[in-house]
Amino acid sequence: MLTEALIESVREYLLSLQDGICAGLEEEDGTGRFSEDSWKRSEGGGGRSRVLTNGAVFEKGGVNFSDVSGASMPKAATTARPDLAGRRFRAMGVSLVLHPLNPFVPTTHANVRFFVAEKDGSEPIWWFGGGLDLTPYYPYEDDAIYWHRTCKKACEPLGGDTYDRFKGWCDRYFYLPHRDETRGIGGLFFDDLNESGFEDSFALMRSVGDHFLAAYLPIVRRRKDSPWGEGERAFQLYRRGRYVEFNLIYDRGTLFGLQSGGRAESILMSLPPMVRWEYGWVPQEGSPEEQLYERYLKPQDWLAGEKT
Amino acid sequence: MLTEALIESVREYLLSLQDGICAGLEEEDGTGRFSEDSWKRSEGGGGRSRVLTNGAVFEKGGVNFSDVSGASMPKAATTARPDLAGRRFRAMGVSLVLHPLNPFVPTTHANVRFFVAEKDGSEPIWWFGGGLDLTPYYPYEDDAIYWHRTCKKACEPLGGDTYDRFKGWCDRYFYLPHRDETRGIGGLFFDDLNESGFEDSFALMRSVGDHFLAAYLPIVRRRKDSPWGEGERAFQLYRRGRYVEFNLIYDRGTLFGLQSGGRAESILMSLPPMVRWEYGWVPQEGSPEEQLYERYLKPQDWLAGEKT
Repeated sequence: MLTEALIESVREYLLSLQDGICAGLEEEDGTGRFSEDSWKRSEGGGGRSRVLTNGAVFEKGGVNFSDVSGASMPKAATTARPDLAGRRFRAMGVSLVLHPLNPFVPTTHANVRFFVAEKDGSEPIWWFGGGLDLTPYYPYEDDAIYWHRTCKKACEPLGGDTYDRFKGWCDRYFYLPHRDETRGIGGLFFDDLNESGFEDSFALMRSVGDHFLAAYLPIVRRRKDSPWGEGERAFQLYRRGRYVEFNLIYDRGTLFGLQSGGRAESILMSLPPMVRWEYGWVPQEGSPEEQLYERYLKPQDWLAGEKT
Repeated sequence: MLTEALIESVREYLLSLQDGICAGLEEEDGTGRFSEDSWKRSEGGGGRSRVLTNGAVFEKGGVNFSDVSGASMPKAATTARPDLAGRRFRAMGVSLVLHPLNPFVPTTHANVRFFVAEKDGSEPIWWFGGGLDLTPYYPYEDDAIYWHRTCKKACEPLGGDTYDRFKGWCDRYFYLPHRDETRGIGGLFFDDLNESGFEDSFALMRSVGDHFLAAYLPIVRRRKDSPWGEGERAFQLYRRGRYVEFNLIYDRGTLFGLQSGGRAESILMSLPPMVRWEYGWVPQEGSPEEQLYERYLKPQDWLAGEKT
């Protein structure tokens, strides 16, 4: 049975996850510091937004905790699940997006979340969701393999084909149909996780949260001192445009947040600090930019060489 | 009765409108020239995209003609009008967005369009739509009054309360609920125009198209030589972020285009060349930026002093 104490334990985990991730990112950055805004929502709940800007490594980074409740589920959440319509909800999670300055360091996003939808006289419906994904600007196979290997480790609490399922889900979710491109090289995405019971589902969600820094920081370390020039910067700003397109047109988390009267500044914290659109741009033949399009913006089995 | 000859006359008008507007903008810019891409769509139809970049006045401008047809109306068009579901359609129009370099020159958007939705054994359903709206970065009352006065003149073919209705519709349409801001100072917006018959509806649409340069160019001339600095540029890039948010989250034209398999590069031509997001930005008290928020990003009756 879902008790208040269990719900509280999820909240406590999420708050400590936000603390741990911010501390790890500040250490990696060296000079940038997160500043915090606490906010309340008139309908219920609130959050703790943390933003770092103009760091040595991170041009902009946001690590957001929120715990909001409402009298009825917003449309973005009930289109796919009509059984939730009309239920009260509580949604809590940590969501982060990091936009590095150096174009050789990938952008990343991670999120873990817990939902409860209640109605008088019915059992509460609850589930976990989350994931992490990587959006490189320049193609490095080592980074892609390392990232996915760590994602696979994060799935161990559920075992079986969990990595394959969540990896495939991520490829399908972070996809821009109007560009026929994935947002990046993916990682994990899961939602509606409850079939293995509260304890195991919560363990998986914690494992995903706890593996984030282990998956990302080694890649940052490898790339953050690579010299870059105007051309790489221009390409990074151009590719950031795809990030904006995905988040504003397709991302259910963003649409859920805006439709449920969430705090726009916190939700749109995911948007890059500087972005460029250019009509009709195509990569030069044989360039690293072309390689990105050919291989890294299409789903790949990055662990094909490591099958056991 | 809607004959093929009438449909062809709309197409001819739209092509000549695109030519006239591009010529007028090139003359005003002085150095920038439009380059043209013609494209075809596998499902039917195509278009003629014209883009000007890095002009003396216009950092990026797109003036797009398209004439596309399809076997069934896309979802974005039938949510509000279920009577159209399952009909074949033909949609043609001219759509333009101009992003000036000088922050004192407003961004503008205009569009005129004609739709026909057909089904065997039924009369075709047809309608006109369109409008023009202005998005200033800095507040100039003279510009706002001149813009709306010209919009009112454009409504003369239908007379009566046409300006008031279309002006109000524009204020409601170009609105960002998550920011509680209008996109700019509005202008005209209309859709589903057919109740006065083909001839009068077409005349109104032509009048809107024909008044665009008359509404915009005098404002450009007044502002294009104003000296500007880094602060104004930063504010312009920041405000352009709202333009992106509106177009990707709310704009039915954009969503219709992307859902109907339109050409992404042409549809997203409306996005600014360079954009900035900044967490938690607020204008300084007493600044022109604050005045913009207080008066120009809320609906106003700009012609209140000119009532006859």
